[in-house]
Amino acid sequence: MTAWHQEIEQAALRLRGHVRRTPCVDGYDYGQGCFIDLKLENLQYTASFKVRGAMNTLLQADVPKAGVVAASGGNHGAAVAFAAQQLGIPAHIFVPEIAGPAKIGLIRSTGAHLTVVHGEYVNALNAALEYGADTGAMQIHAYDAPKTVIGQGTLFHEWQDQGLQADTVLIAVGGGGLIAGAMGWFAGARKIVAVEPVTCATLNAALTAGEPVDVPITGVAANALGAKKIGQICFDLATEQEILSITVSDDDITNAQDRLWNDLRQYVEPAGATALAALTSGAYRPEPDERVAVLVCGANPSQAPL
Amino acid sequence: MTAWHQEIEQAALRLRGHVRRTPCVDGYDYGQGCFIDLKLENLQYTASFKVRGAMNTLLQADVPKAGVVAASGGNHGAAVAFAAQQLGIPAHIFVPEIAGPAKIGLIRSTGAHLTVVHGEYVNALNAALEYGADTGAMQIHAYDAPKTVIGQGTLFHEWQDQGLQADTVLIAVGGGGLIAGAMGWFAGARKIVAVEPVTCATLNAALTAGEPVDVPITGVAANALGAKKIGQICFDLATEQEILSITVSDDDITNAQDRLWNDLRQYVEPAGATALAALTSGAYRPEPDERVAVLVCGANPSQAPL
Repeated sequence: MTAWHQEIEQAALRLRGHVRRTPCVDGYDYGQGCFIDLKLENLQYTASFKVRGAMNTLLQADVPKAGVVAASGGNHGAAVAFAAQQLGIPAHIFVPEIAGPAKIGLIRSTGAHLTVVHGEYVNALNAALEYGADTGAMQIHAYDAPKTVIGQGTLFHEWQDQGLQADTVLIAVGGGGLIAGAMGWFAGARKIVAVEPVTCATLNAALTAGEPVDVPITGVAANALGAKKIGQICFDLATEQEILSITVSDDDITNAQDRLWNDLRQYVEPAGATALAALTSGAYRPEPDERVAVLVCGANPSQAPL
Repeated sequence: MTAWHQEIEQAALRLRGHVRRTPCVDGYDYGQGCFIDLKLENLQYTASFKVRGAMNTLLQADVPKAGVVAASGGNHGAAVAFAAQQLGIPAHIFVPEIAGPAKIGLIRSTGAHLTVVHGEYVNALNAALEYGADTGAMQIHAYDAPKTVIGQGTLFHEWQDQGLQADTVLIAVGGGGLIAGAMGWFAGARKIVAVEPVTCATLNAALTAGEPVDVPITGVAANALGAKKIGQICFDLATEQEILSITVSDDDITNAQDRLWNDLRQYVEPAGATALAALTSGAYRPEPDERVAVLVCGANPSQAPL
């Protein structure tokens, strides 16, 4: 058992009652005679897995009087704001303007202080770092911090506890916190496939370059998966475990979004459909006997349906 | 064990592989310190429980050459059309115009013949009866037929198999096929609460009158719950078991729809939120120790989000 594995087991106990145990759908026939298992993490508090890492961090923290600060494309910010609210901690969230009104509204609804920053995620991150330096507020990194990664790892611990059978798990990648949690938990016991939009493929670019490199950030999933550079923790684990990295187009992603609504009445944001897009587009073709699982990781679309 | 119970057990075996095992969410805190269990039948094929009754009927039928005919506010029609398509049977569906474009489009996507009828559900029913008499096509009643009721009953068999703990189960009522299945399965072992929109409260009116009576059909859930008169099977079981019947306003229903989206990212039609509305509106107030479950039964909103 690796250190990551042990830490994730402990975090799962810590998070009990603080995060939702999200439902699974087994044997979903997505239309090519291939049956896959899904975990619907879109039903999580604040509608993404991010609350696991945020809550895991805050529950162990000696939080300064200035509270907590985070930079986020939206989902991490909402998660930190929600976790802070639950624990009675002041929170200040910096979001890039591409987060969009729905995510910004979700953060605001928690009562957190909010600053919308011109530019990309990296600009919001710099503003958050500056705020932390000025005020002493505690930073929670969106993906490249051990407690964040360990919190996200509890998702896979939970899935296994729910009877996950799959040989292969497909996971969308932005900054790499979620998939690092998966690599930390499974430690090679299952095949992990990293799926990224070709429009912001930070892990793919890093694996090609042999080190984390800056990539341009565009496309439909940019506000959730648009980290400028893959996190070091994720890069090191991905290199060590030699996981498969594939990319999908923005059209593949919106087609998978349609599929999730039409077949399963799950209305998710582009990032939430990115892992499924690898299958529905044919970018990843399972072997005849391979059992595949897909994580639906988030559902804060730019336009709420109601 | 009652005859209903045995029939439902057999139907559950029959339906294996033909319907989805839909996921559950346990311990959802809907905001009044009360934790409830949900079953998300909105993830079923054609996005409602109706496919269970339709498939159960067709799998036992000696289908005539003219195929199958059904009248429906939309969900039953989509279910019959889907089941017929899966089994290679021709289908003709009569829908009242209030079914709306999304449900009509869903039926059309199965390749079924479709006739949109001016007026209410009862007008579509009469047209379907006439078509059946003319052609010899087999009728599948939307709610008041034993095989339909038994098929819907498999939902509760499944829920119990998934570990349902609740003392009390809240279920929306239209024509009464679904709740009749629940009464047939539970047979008094759990408290059942029938929830209807005050704008089309067919069971409530029947229990008051002492017999099924015609009621006016209006309101936000009319195209799914707007049977003009409760089914006799449902009425007889409800009278025998003395189940609790309560009503909610259209505003209560739309508030519960908002809640399901905001809290759980489930975007459902008004009928799918009607059972939850009894709790969120306070129309039903559980005892402090009472464990309550709510069925989310359908998700074909008039406007798709994508």
